[in-house]
Amino acid sequence: MTTDVHAAWLPPEAFRAVGTRRVRVDVGGGVGDTVRGEVERACGEYGGSVGDGQACDLVLEVGGDAGQEGYVLGRRDGVTRVVGGDAAGLLYGFFHVVRLGEDAFGEDFETAAHRPALRTRMLDHWDNLTVHPVMGAVERGYSGGSIFWRDGEPLRDLPRVRAYARLLAATGINAVAVNNVNVHAAETRLLTERLGDVAELADVFRPYGIRLHLSVNFAAPVVLGDLTTADPLDEAVAQWWAAAADRVHAAIPDFGGFVVKADSEGQPGPFAYGRTHADGANMLAAALAPHGSEVHWRAFVYNHQQDWRDRTTDRARAAYDHFAPQDGEFADNVVLQVKYGPIDFQTREPVSPVIAAMPRTRLAVELQVTQEYTGQQRHVCYLGPMWSEVLGFRPWGDGGRSVADLAADPATGGGLVAVSNVGDDPYWTGHPLAQANLYAFGRLAWDPGADPLALLDEWIGLTFLPLLSRDRDPEPLRRTLHAMMDGSWRTYERYTAPLGVGFMVRPGNHYGPDVDGYEYQPWGTYHFADRDGIGVDRTRATGTGYTGQYPQPWSDVYEELDSCPDELLLFFHHVPYGHVLHSGATVVQHIYDTHFAGADEAAAMRERWTELAGTGLVDAALHARVLERLDEQVRCAGEWRDQVNAYFLRKSGVPDARGRRIP
Amino acid sequence: MTTDVHAAWLPPEAFRAVGTRRVRVDVGGGVGDTVRGEVERACGEYGGSVGDGQACDLVLEVGGDAGQEGYVLGRRDGVTRVVGGDAAGLLYGFFHVVRLGEDAFGEDFETAAHRPALRTRMLDHWDNLTVHPVMGAVERGYSGGSIFWRDGEPLRDLPRVRAYARLLAATGINAVAVNNVNVHAAETRLLTERLGDVAELADVFRPYGIRLHLSVNFAAPVVLGDLTTADPLDEAVAQWWAAAADRVHAAIPDFGGFVVKADSEGQPGPFAYGRTHADGANMLAAALAPHGSEVHWRAFVYNHQQDWRDRTTDRARAAYDHFAPQDGEFADNVVLQVKYGPIDFQTREPVSPVIAAMPRTRLAVELQVTQEYTGQQRHVCYLGPMWSEVLGFRPWGDGGRSVADLAADPATGGGLVAVSNVGDDPYWTGHPLAQANLYAFGRLAWDPGADPLALLDEWIGLTFLPLLSRDRDPEPLRRTLHAMMDGSWRTYERYTAPLGVGFMVRPGNHYGPDVDGYEYQPWGTYHFADRDGIGVDRTRATGTGYTGQYPQPWSDVYEELDSCPDELLLFFHHVPYGHVLHSGATVVQHIYDTHFAGADEAAAMRERWTELAGTGLVDAALHARVLERLDEQVRCAGEWRDQVNAYFLRKSGVPDARGRRIP
Repeated sequence: MTTDVHAAWLPPEAFRAVGTRRVRVDVGGGVGDTVRGEVERACGEYGGSVGDGQACDLVLEVGGDAGQEGYVLGRRDGVTRVVGGDAAGLLYGFFHVVRLGEDAFGEDFETAAHRPALRTRMLDHWDNLTVHPVMGAVERGYSGGSIFWRDGEPLRDLPRVRAYARLLAATGINAVAVNNVNVHAAETRLLTERLGDVAELADVFRPYGIRLHLSVNFAAPVVLGDLTTADPLDEAVAQWWAAAADRVHAAIPDFGGFVVKADSEGQPGPFAYGRTHADGANMLAAALAPHGSEVHWRAFVYNHQQDWRDRTTDRARAAYDHFAPQDGEFADNVVLQVKYGPIDFQTREPVSPVIAAMPRTRLAVELQVTQEYTGQQRHVCYLGPMWSEVLGFRPWGDGGRSVADLAADPATGGGLVAVSNVGDDPYWTGHPLAQANLYAFGRLAWDPGADPLALLDEWIGLTFLPLLSRDRDPEPLRRTLHAMMDGSWRTYERYTAPLGVGFMVRPGNHYGPDVDGYEYQPWGTYHFADRDGIGVDRTRATGTGYTGQYPQPWSDVYEELDSCPDELLLFFHHVPYGHVLHSGATVVQHIYDTHFAGADEAAAMRERWTELAGTGLVDAALHARVLERLDEQVRCAGEWRDQVNAYFLRKSGVPDARGRRIP
Repeated sequence: MTTDVHAAWLPPEAFRAVGTRRVRVDVGGGVGDTVRGEVERACGEYGGSVGDGQACDLVLEVGGDAGQEGYVLGRRDGVTRVVGGDAAGLLYGFFHVVRLGEDAFGEDFETAAHRPALRTRMLDHWDNLTVHPVMGAVERGYSGGSIFWRDGEPLRDLPRVRAYARLLAATGINAVAVNNVNVHAAETRLLTERLGDVAELADVFRPYGIRLHLSVNFAAPVVLGDLTTADPLDEAVAQWWAAAADRVHAAIPDFGGFVVKADSEGQPGPFAYGRTHADGANMLAAALAPHGSEVHWRAFVYNHQQDWRDRTTDRARAAYDHFAPQDGEFADNVVLQVKYGPIDFQTREPVSPVIAAMPRTRLAVELQVTQEYTGQQRHVCYLGPMWSEVLGFRPWGDGGRSVADLAADPATGGGLVAVSNVGDDPYWTGHPLAQANLYAFGRLAWDPGADPLALLDEWIGLTFLPLLSRDRDPEPLRRTLHAMMDGSWRTYERYTAPLGVGFMVRPGNHYGPDVDGYEYQPWGTYHFADRDGIGVDRTRATGTGYTGQYPQPWSDVYEELDSCPDELLLFFHHVPYGHVLHSGATVVQHIYDTHFAGADEAAAMRERWTELAGTGLVDAALHARVLERLDEQVRCAGEWRDQVNAYFLRKSGVPDARGRRIP
């Protein structure tokens, strides 16, 4: 079944450097066997050798003090040596050697230690067991069906799951949740009669150092008909979950834990019983604690039935208002999973103030690799730079700790989580270039300080360049991909909602423009544009007070018009169209300029790609797939440009200073 | 299966006056048996007698010169006499006597002749054989599933179909199309292997004087796999349709004909072969002509993939531009079926100019009983007054012929058609008060000059009043229903899109407000609101020239701001918000005022209805059903008021002169 699946960043050709060497592998069993298998495959392909002989080019072994999942890597006297702190560390070190390619076997280099910055590096799949009538097989999935489930049954394409696990391991991912956080009746049974199917998947992930997690329904004891309550303080409920946890761990000894979306967008939760989130999370945590696994409790809680007329309610405040008062109340094996921004994975949001507000709670930051609001894998939108900004944000200002530091804290860090963009599409991710997002996410979770453009280059170097014959100059292809992708997130931002105001997408499917689509709806996502101005006043002085949820200096930086960054201006302030940005442009002229520029950049992207046609630098089928998506991106970007510009021209009456045609 | 279906305007109690009399019925066979059966049932219930004796109170017979479907009715010397021109005429006369109730048996009254003004009085069902994933069982249906089909099979609830036919006959309807004009693969087979199922339905309608029609797919020969072309000038295609027509008429001797939606919203048609609508319609007409049946060819043809940026294309022009040049080219048994307005069944539209533009073509006018754009049977919206205005419209001005005159013309009139609002709901129409629309449509098709409020009163008199015990005063109930329903269309208009501009509904489902929902879409339905004004310039002087499609005086009346009626102002003109209407209000103040008033009227409607609770004047279950719908109407009207007012306040910046709160 997996014959035709794209190799992504692990084409056989990427293993040429290793595969032509004499390699010694001193590890066995479990993940160690995976390392040995990788070496044997590479050497089988390219004529190298695997053995215990003294003379060798590469030594792979376990020991020393590199620590859990860590490794040391260096080259001396013509021998490259990787010493894993454990087998998983060795596997990561092996993939490091693959990334280095021939450079791993050139001049000697100093031995250095490598460890993942974040303990948990996780992908959540929003996969349904059956096709949901509205949300489909994979909620917010743009890459076909689930790779795990189909028609209510396990898909059992285990070679594909294995290939997926291998790709993830090569980026450093060590945790996966295999079902949607919106847990319907069918998925609730993964805890019971479907547990064998889950264990089968866990067996595939395990050799790649990846622990399996399950999303669970907080009301599972009721949904399954065992109890009449899911009250977390009810002893019978606690016992039910303890028994469930025992059963899961008996089937999956290294089970990672539960992911829970509770009291959010209609999902059940502790509120129904007058209990707190801490009550709910801690009850589940107690069930898992004896087994050493964890609860990922999502902080995405807000009123999704808000009255749009009520300007005092601010969805951005909701997660902080719900959770910050409970800091210190969560058990040690509860990880509060916080979306990076206060709203919902928009192209541009400020960092969620919750992340800095709960020093006595373990926090994970949640990103979205699947491009729900960033072009749905029909648009090129490389998200590495956005994630890098988020991870590098310092809530207490320069010199203070960063978001990455908090997520990495040994005591209170909960790691990095993202929603996967993978489906049963032959290119894994629908848009072949969207593979870069999956790759970059894993690598940033390992090293949040990495340069996202360097990671993109790494991805290009693994995915495309090894396929070129040795007499081809790889630079034109590399340059083209960088030209298309480096700034693609900002390009997408330019032609969509301006200056951090967010949304303006078609309700429901979240694709394409609809400026007022959410404006009079109950979802709490408004821009308040009128004939004079636009934006949401979230100041303490005159607005919802949301700026007060940040520590200094940001609390004041965002509060004051003068210091608020342009790109977030309309998230924090309602300003007249004539307000002059730091850039020197008025708000309305900025809207016009960026929308013309963004759509032009999309067209230029397509132009660059068409120049590759017939060059043999990329596979013809992949070229065609990308081109088809670029056609749609160019069309859609033009639609965004025209709808947004027409909307603001009609509303403001201010003509474009450069006299361009606005319909 | 039909035990629990509401009796609508034919409750047994409505037959009391007839049922207590001595009745002589001098007719038999076919529809005559239906008359006899009605009398026998009534007399069996209420103690009257049916016989041939000399002494009698009511004589029902056929003969004389009342003509096809006509009858004469009078009372002399204490004997009421109905003489039908044929059995169908007698049936209509009988129901006339039922409507009169005791008045039919009081003082003598002059004998008068009655004939239907329109030859064809037709209801089209947009029923699908299988549930369409988007449109459901009945397209634009708000009353549950189809009464004809379910899960791809005939529903075979023939008692319900019979009850439906009887209700229709009592209003004067004589034609029904039993499947959706969007003809999918399953419905295409109604012409072939499913023909027996259709004949079964025709057998049920026949005793009520109703001929059955089928909607057909223009590409049926291709869809069914018989031919590779549906080119109307291809001899094999013509033969295919001739054979199909022969087959249908063999199974259904009185088959009414085909209904065709061709080259419209994605349906196939003659354009694919470079042929005209006349080519297509005439080919089908030739197949039916030997059998005396007809083609109903819909004029609802426009570009539904229009570029919203292109202001030169005007959907309102489309039907005229397509069809007027073909006047005189259609065969005698083609009826061009024209929607009453140029757009699509909006709450307020001008009358379609096509109706006055084709003197050498048989034209039927199409109305919509199902409330797609008028509240979807969740809102009380009695449409009789709207239809009455349309039918009374005189395209050539005072003294000229009316729309009803044209539809009734013996040579070129094609009758009146409407989309049914009936489903398998226990009240037939979802909202029990929506039955009044079905009733009024049939009665107006019989007599377009009837006063719509008198028809409403007639409906109340049949539906509600006979159920009251004789000691109850019926006036309070009658007054309440009139208070709620008489002006309900104008109330609905007040709180929805203003001044004839149309749409502003949620895309797709067409329910509830979304002012910009269709503004940047390909459907050709725009309002062009900006900060200065609103409306569509359809003048000859500066706009799309649509006003030029009307004869005088309307061509000039609509062209000039001074003479254009307020209620259609924004359909024809783009004006500033400060433009002063004939009413004396500015456009924007009119918007505020009508929206506050409309929502208040909806609330008052509910208030009136709640006063009936517990009085015993209406059935408790029906009261509850109506109240539940009124709750939704009041909620939705408030949403319309607030969204429309907020939209225009934000856009115009003009405050409400009366200082009311606009969110």
